[in-house]
Amino acid sequence: MNTIGKLFTFTSFGESHGKGVGGVVDGCPAGIEIDTEFIQKELTRRRPGQSIISTPRSEEDKIEFLSGIFEGKSTGHPIAFVIWNKNQESKDYDHLKDVFRPSHADYTYQQKYGIRDHRGGGRSSARATAAWVAAGAIAKLALIQTGVDIKAYTSQVGHIAVNKTYEELDLTQIESNIIRCPDAETAEKMIEYIDKLRIEGNSIGGIITCVVKGVPVGWGEPLFDKLQARLAAAMLTINATHGFDYGRGFEGVHLTGAEMNDSFTKVGEKVTTKTNNSGGIQGGISNGQDIYFRVLFKPVATISIKQETLDKELNKINLEARGRHDPCVLPRAVPIVEAMAAITLLDLYLMRIRG
Amino acid sequence: MNTIGKLFTFTSFGESHGKGVGGVVDGCPAGIEIDTEFIQKELTRRRPGQSIISTPRSEEDKIEFLSGIFEGKSTGHPIAFVIWNKNQESKDYDHLKDVFRPSHADYTYQQKYGIRDHRGGGRSSARATAAWVAAGAIAKLALIQTGVDIKAYTSQVGHIAVNKTYEELDLTQIESNIIRCPDAETAEKMIEYIDKLRIEGNSIGGIITCVVKGVPVGWGEPLFDKLQARLAAAMLTINATHGFDYGRGFEGVHLTGAEMNDSFTKVGEKVTTKTNNSGGIQGGISNGQDIYFRVLFKPVATISIKQETLDKELNKINLEARGRHDPCVLPRAVPIVEAMAAITLLDLYLMRIRG
Amino acid sequence: MNTIGKLFTFTSFGESHGKGVGGVVDGCPAGIEIDTEFIQKELTRRRPGQSIISTPRSEEDKIEFLSGIFEGKSTGHPIAFVIWNKNQESKDYDHLKDVFRPSHADYTYQQKYGIRDHRGGGRSSARATAAWVAAGAIAKLALIQTGVDIKAYTSQVGHIAVNKTYEELDLTQIESNIIRCPDAETAEKMIEYIDKLRIEGNSIGGIITCVVKGVPVGWGEPLFDKLQARLAAAMLTINATHGFDYGRGFEGVHLTGAEMNDSFTKVGEKVTTKTNNSGGIQGGISNGQDIYFRVLFKPVATISIKQETLDKELNKINLEARGRHDPCVLPRAVPIVEAMAAITLLDLYLMRIRG
Amino acid sequence: MNTIGKLFTFTSFGESHGKGVGGVVDGCPAGIEIDTEFIQKELTRRRPGQSIISTPRSEEDKIEFLSGIFEGKSTGHPIAFVIWNKNQESKDYDHLKDVFRPSHADYTYQQKYGIRDHRGGGRSSARATAAWVAAGAIAKLALIQTGVDIKAYTSQVGHIAVNKTYEELDLTQIESNIIRCPDAETAEKMIEYIDKLRIEGNSIGGIITCVVKGVPVGWGEPLFDKLQARLAAAMLTINATHGFDYGRGFEGVHLTGAEMNDSFTKVGEKVTTKTNNSGGIQGGISNGQDIYFRVLFKPVATISIKQETLDKELNKINLEARGRHDPCVLPRAVPIVEAMAAITLLDLYLMRIRG
Repeated sequence: MNTIGKLFTFTSFGESHGKGVGGVVDGCPAGIEIDTEFIQKELTRRRPGQSIISTPRSEEDKIEFLSGIFEGKSTGHPIAFVIWNKNQESKDYDHLKDVFRPSHADYTYQQKYGIRDHRGGGRSSARATAAWVAAGAIAKLALIQTGVDIKAYTSQVGHIAVNKTYEELDLTQIESNIIRCPDAETAEKMIEYIDKLRIEGNSIGGIITCVVKGVPVGWGEPLFDKLQARLAAAMLTINATHGFDYGRGFEGVHLTGAEMNDSFTKVGEKVTTKTNNSGGIQGGISNGQDIYFRVLFKPVATISIKQETLDKELNKINLEARGRHDPCVLPRAVPIVEAMAAITLLDLYLMRIRG
Repeated sequence: MNTIGKLFTFTSFGESHGKGVGGVVDGCPAGIEIDTEFIQKELTRRRPGQSIISTPRSEEDKIEFLSGIFEGKSTGHPIAFVIWNKNQESKDYDHLKDVFRPSHADYTYQQKYGIRDHRGGGRSSARATAAWVAAGAIAKLALIQTGVDIKAYTSQVGHIAVNKTYEELDLTQIESNIIRCPDAETAEKMIEYIDKLRIEGNSIGGIITCVVKGVPVGWGEPLFDKLQARLAAAMLTINATHGFDYGRGFEGVHLTGAEMNDSFTKVGEKVTTKTNNSGGIQGGISNGQDIYFRVLFKPVATISIKQETLDKELNKINLEARGRHDPCVLPRAVPIVEAMAAITLLDLYLMRIRG
Repeated sequence: MNTIGKLFTFTSFGESHGKGVGGVVDGCPAGIEIDTEFIQKELTRRRPGQSIISTPRSEEDKIEFLSGIFEGKSTGHPIAFVIWNKNQESKDYDHLKDVFRPSHADYTYQQKYGIRDHRGGGRSSARATAAWVAAGAIAKLALIQTGVDIKAYTSQVGHIAVNKTYEELDLTQIESNIIRCPDAETAEKMIEYIDKLRIEGNSIGGIITCVVKGVPVGWGEPLFDKLQARLAAAMLTINATHGFDYGRGFEGVHLTGAEMNDSFTKVGEKVTTKTNNSGGIQGGISNGQDIYFRVLFKPVATISIKQETLDKELNKINLEARGRHDPCVLPRAVPIVEAMAAITLLDLYLMRIRG
Repeated sequence: MNTIGKLFTFTSFGESHGKGVGGVVDGCPAGIEIDTEFIQKELTRRRPGQSIISTPRSEEDKIEFLSGIFEGKSTGHPIAFVIWNKNQESKDYDHLKDVFRPSHADYTYQQKYGIRDHRGGGRSSARATAAWVAAGAIAKLALIQTGVDIKAYTSQVGHIAVNKTYEELDLTQIESNIIRCPDAETAEKMIEYIDKLRIEGNSIGGIITCVVKGVPVGWGEPLFDKLQARLAAAMLTINATHGFDYGRGFEGVHLTGAEMNDSFTKVGEKVTTKTNNSGGIQGGISNGQDIYFRVLFKPVATISIKQETLDKELNKINLEARGRHDPCVLPRAVPIVEAMAAITLLDLYLMRIRG
């Protein structure tokens, strides 16, 4: 339900147009410096209104901590926080009250719960992910101390893909453009394409690639807490995601065993692998190599193009969205992918320390 | 760790060359007829030695139930079972005792646990999946009563793909050939290709597509037990898997929102969607349409072609596998995918009944 | 850690002198009317400053809901709430910053976490139970619809005990006096005794009895979610508790099997038991009879009498409490016992609905 | 349900007259020497037929390990085991098939599940505890390495109580008599009393005291995994238990705060407390002092004295037990209490290692 993790847990709450979105982080090791500036910066990376290719809604996404921090440090007790909703214009959504928008959660929520906060998508709104980013930022602060570094970027928008591996890219350039693609040339094409769709009232999806460096051998708990399984679940939780692969994924389906296998070798006294098609994971456990994976996002379901659908009384209606929305969520989803990766990894890190 | 699920749980145990593999299924509703013939049939679909394209090891995979069944029916208490190991030839593996086989779990297990049962892969062996299939068969028996039907098939082997959607295929033909591909023509090409690689001592992966019919609206628990997240985790738990997508997945990355959105409509009084690009899931909850997803398998890591690697003392060595292995796990993985889907769906079914 | 329950879960947060205490309730069935007046009334039963025998601290304990409620009803999504801290006088606690108060959590928290919010007991303060009462009130609102009624009362203070069974008492009289004991005569003695100890700067514990009526047959999940085990865990979580028994407890240790056994019989067509020494639970499952149990509370550890102890540097010091405290927590603990019972029972109620 | 624990988990299965009882232990640290002789010895302490005051059923209770052990050591993977049933005489129980025995689980199981394995109590039989003792023995083997020592003994049978604290007793004498009471004189009286009741066909309960030495400061996770709450839940899971207290329990209810509080002091450089009324736990966390607690057992429900009750068709009937049963379970429950304590403590030990 709304709590993820075993030792490092995150409980999420909040709706798009309620008081706010927030969460409770439990199991954060004591004594971690809670750098609120860093957390705020992460929130700002996700917040809407950053550029022409994201929604003009301008949420401030200011975080307020309620507990678990004493003299700037985590106490080992639950860290609760709220990101207050400020810019809600609920009446903008009145016309959607009784509508089942195509490919949204309106219909399934209504049928499952019999009641639904329709304002701005209510609980199913991507606004909830602001809290995930905050929780992820706390996880990052704890992980940094272990030497782990997590970086995600937009690697594909619609048919426009970066044709380089993450190793061929300069990941320090991710934040240098509004699509968060470290390949400047491709970034430009992506932005142009999104802007064209934006003007049409259409939307587009794509792929985010995430690279985790610095995870030592041994994270991940077979059988049912395998590292890739936990990452996949975390990623498929993010709104609009439709797929996940790690290491050589779907595009490498043609490879034979002889081509795919990663031979072990030594560099000095350090064990490494000649190739890293396994994406840093073998038998569900990190092997010390870079972990990398991809997350597929479908296009935002909210578009301004007229669509046929049903209302609550099951009358056929025509729908034209008037809410403020993103033509492409990818750039804002980059910090969300990183956050969910951090939440997952910190939990597996804590689980592995035994005996 | 080794228990999956919340209300319907499955605890797995066993190694390739120990006494046996098995498990404990807990939370199975009481009064379900435990059709042991059906369970045995499912096990037989997974067992090795079925055809020329699978390993010649011929495990009998006979299941023995230890508890939880009374007069042929589930009692609501834990159903424990063992599939005894019979055909172990542990000495076949003596030469692997100190070897870190490329892309196997040898290295990560050794580093994580400091001890490792090397015989036939020990705990990391795919033999453990025999028990998963048994647990899944029990879940299927409970799900059948709700009208749910799960069918998986091999949709791609290496570069050879079925070029039809599942709706264009006759899924009753899945079991009509040894690769479990319902498209006879493609099946033949797949088998030929695998046999060629088998002779070379090489291996190949591919994709299994799974289709679930009959799930009503309302299964799946946002936020962190979303249907697709739980399915992804279950699939990425299966040995050798590297990817998952559902509905229109990676191959549909170029679609715009206008193309991807599923409009709601009515057929008679029944709500349905004009298209089903969402794969039967919206907001993490089943919407009453078919659920379909794909699982990517890498090639079997065990090949007979010479490979460089390290041994436990970190000496460089050359390795030539002599164990009995599959050139392609896809056909045997079909029932495993179905089993993990069934385990996941039954749990979410039970979780949804409230109030 | 800080989340309790499986389907109906409660995540607790907050410190005595932080921003506030609160929680997130997850798994509350949708469509429950969230009667905030009732919840506030429950909070008022727990709040300090109610009478001469409780602490003069006068916390307002005003609850603010942050999510999960729409048009007055639960939506099936997390209900987060905060009870803001208002009356904190943190400087009152400055002299305790480096002191390990006897029988408090100061020492264990300091050693375990290496950091400690000492203000008013911080996280270990009973102030956190305000949030439990709120969560319990929500659980009560859901349980009422199933016909369950939970009533607790003070049955013993120090050596002064009610010499009647709950069946011989008029439970509507619980709230008629400040000690919450339905036996007026005993209540008076208890109050006198507490007041005497209050003047001395001393404190006293006692026993709360809780009676749950209306639970039908079938709640409780053997083996490890037995009704009595879950209740015991919930009760032993409450600050200052030291014991739990149900049905005929410690005082009936001398009974033989022939005396203790509850014979089944019929009243009309309804199955009942001639006696109810089992306290309404058999084999870990409710049997349809009244559930009753007792919870032992030790005396409040904070007293105004001089005590020897250590400070953080392990110097011996003399301590005289100056904070505001209760000479006896029993009356304020009555609603806490009820709340934890409600949280436990609702979870087991939801878990039992299967197939 | 049938799995207990978070990191060190135990999944229980089996019925009295099925194939056997057993379990799966998961999360046992790797590299622990699995001393099967020790485990067998623990099982022998619990097995029936040990003396005239226990049931004459003579179960062999021979354990067979199925997985998780390699070359005598734990591998970090699930340890599954079975204790095969051998001495079942199911026809002995035919006359109980349709009977709801007083104070047994027959009625609640039948109503909850609609189906019931009546043979020898089926799943609700105390025979299941053989597997718990085995799991507990494994936990003990892991705990021994941390210096923890767990010892339980019979401290009261009916009205006959040991009038000494555990510190005044010689705990090495526990196994020196058949009632497992270290006070020889009291033991004799207890045995006489039980034997008298045995001849009458009656039964009696009592109290087991458990003492845990060597737990350092810091075990136990507030809020909802407090050490005493976890212990209480574990103890109240044991068949026939009705109560739990720790430190100064119900018998100390008259103590004031000034009497109950444990002052901190130093012995050399070691922090200790002058008294240990807290039973080694403060704020839910171990404080380094001895942990001690009591568990109340009701009399065995199976007696040979005629009792009125109902059958499945709700006809009134007279019941005279003919099965083989214990007049007092206390001596055989001693190792069960220790086992459940060990399972609980190892889990909390593993949970505490962080960052």
